[in-house]
Amino acid sequence: MEKEKRNVRFYISYDGTRYRGWARQPGEEMTIQGKIEDVLTRMVLGTDEIPEDAKRIQLIGSGRTDAGVHAKCQVANAMLSTEKTDTEICEHLNRYLPGDISVKQALTVSRRFHSRYNAVSKTYRYTLWHAPYKPVFDRKYVTVMEKKPDVQAMREAAAHITGTHDFKSFCGNPHMKKSTVRTVKSITIREDGPYIRIDYCGDGFLQNMVRIMTGTLLEVGTGRMKADDIPRIMDALDRQQAGPTAPASGLCLMCVDYS
Amino acid sequence: MEKEKRNVRFYISYDGTRYRGWARQPGEEMTIQGKIEDVLTRMVLGTDEIPEDAKRIQLIGSGRTDAGVHAKCQVANAMLSTEKTDTEICEHLNRYLPGDISVKQALTVSRRFHSRYNAVSKTYRYTLWHAPYKPVFDRKYVTVMEKKPDVQAMREAAAHITGTHDFKSFCGNPHMKKSTVRTVKSITIREDGPYIRIDYCGDGFLQNMVRIMTGTLLEVGTGRMKADDIPRIMDALDRQQAGPTAPASGLCLMCVDYS
Repeated sequence: MEKEKRNVRFYISYDGTRYRGWARQPGEEMTIQGKIEDVLTRMVLGTDEIPEDAKRIQLIGSGRTDAGVHAKCQVANAMLSTEKTDTEICEHLNRYLPGDISVKQALTVSRRFHSRYNAVSKTYRYTLWHAPYKPVFDRKYVTVMEKKPDVQAMREAAAHITGTHDFKSFCGNPHMKKSTVRTVKSITIREDGPYIRIDYCGDGFLQNMVRIMTGTLLEVGTGRMKADDIPRIMDALDRQQAGPTAPASGLCLMCVDYS
Repeated sequence: MEKEKRNVRFYISYDGTRYRGWARQPGEEMTIQGKIEDVLTRMVLGTDEIPEDAKRIQLIGSGRTDAGVHAKCQVANAMLSTEKTDTEICEHLNRYLPGDISVKQALTVSRRFHSRYNAVSKTYRYTLWHAPYKPVFDRKYVTVMEKKPDVQAMREAAAHITGTHDFKSFCGNPHMKKSTVRTVKSITIREDGPYIRIDYCGDGFLQNMVRIMTGTLLEVGTGRMKADDIPRIMDALDRQQAGPTAPASGLCLMCVDYS
């Protein structure tokens, strides 16, 4: 008789440097979802090898992160039939996952909880570095600026982006058929020594959207665009009008909020 | 005519993970001193290749760091004949050094300044991690503890270590012929979430001394030794009496002070 399944929610940190992104892809070993599903499937089956015809555990993430993007606290859930406690599941995952993926917590929750559908907002942080010297210890998690950008101009541009808009100009997927309307609740830009941290909070983000917003803010910060250009760029509904896609390595999913 | 030489002081950060330590060694490519000397020598010669008979620039560090040990602010100096400004020297080094070595500042100083002889104290930090989950972003810079150590007992042990003593029991070099008397000015142990940070300030440290002190404090913190065992261990002047050498990766040279 099959044991009853329970819904387990996970808080996950990862250094995305080595990975092709969150989402499992056929024939691609290096995805974060795939790595965690492998360990969960072996755990539930109680085997070291996963048979060809085995039913794999499906892990539902709050959303995808691009190749090279990091997460401090990604949220995911999976239906599991196991006699292990939540703590034991967490320990098992941390023992068998590689050192650049860590499960901060595993918690059995209501069967109705869905990491993606129930998410009400997400916060991403983009970290820039400007100093006469290079970053050492967090060199894989920041984007180095040759010149210091004009942070005040970036804040003015960010004010134009904030709010509910059609973000088609900031969408990296040219074939997107669903609505490209999103609400960016806030964009906060903080300076801290050599760091400039841009926090984006929104109800959801389109593909590459945070990186394109960052690339556009940096066009303003380096004087190649003006803050007042933003409304025209947004109205154009044309990816070509916005700035370039900022590098993945500076981006980190900080948290996902649920109601 | 040879240009006049000037004495340039460097503040250097490095991630020691890939290196065989600070000190240049014959036939060993991967040393921090060697990497910086190579770039400085090529800069001064104005060539891409260093001829066999070239006089290499000698970089004097405040002291050695072991293989795998990091530095937030190592200090070094070298006599250079170059027409570059200090800022240009710094930029040149950061352009040609690998991403895990960064020169924070280059500054021309008195010819009498000597990084090693003039140092009056050094601060090293050892970082421990204890949580039900693994560290991700600083996993190469912390030592993970299975169980949380007893920090209060470690503080009591640290109080016995602090002061001027013969630290022969804490010296990793069994052939040390010079004095093993050193002054540990302070040992500060702070808890911050999953981190336990141990800061050691002293006038100088013997080979492996900070790592052996840490290993000994951890013996006390995990209950295998008692804080009151420390005076006996120190009096024994015997490396075998102290705890094991803690892993290099948790250790970082934080700063070097000059009078």
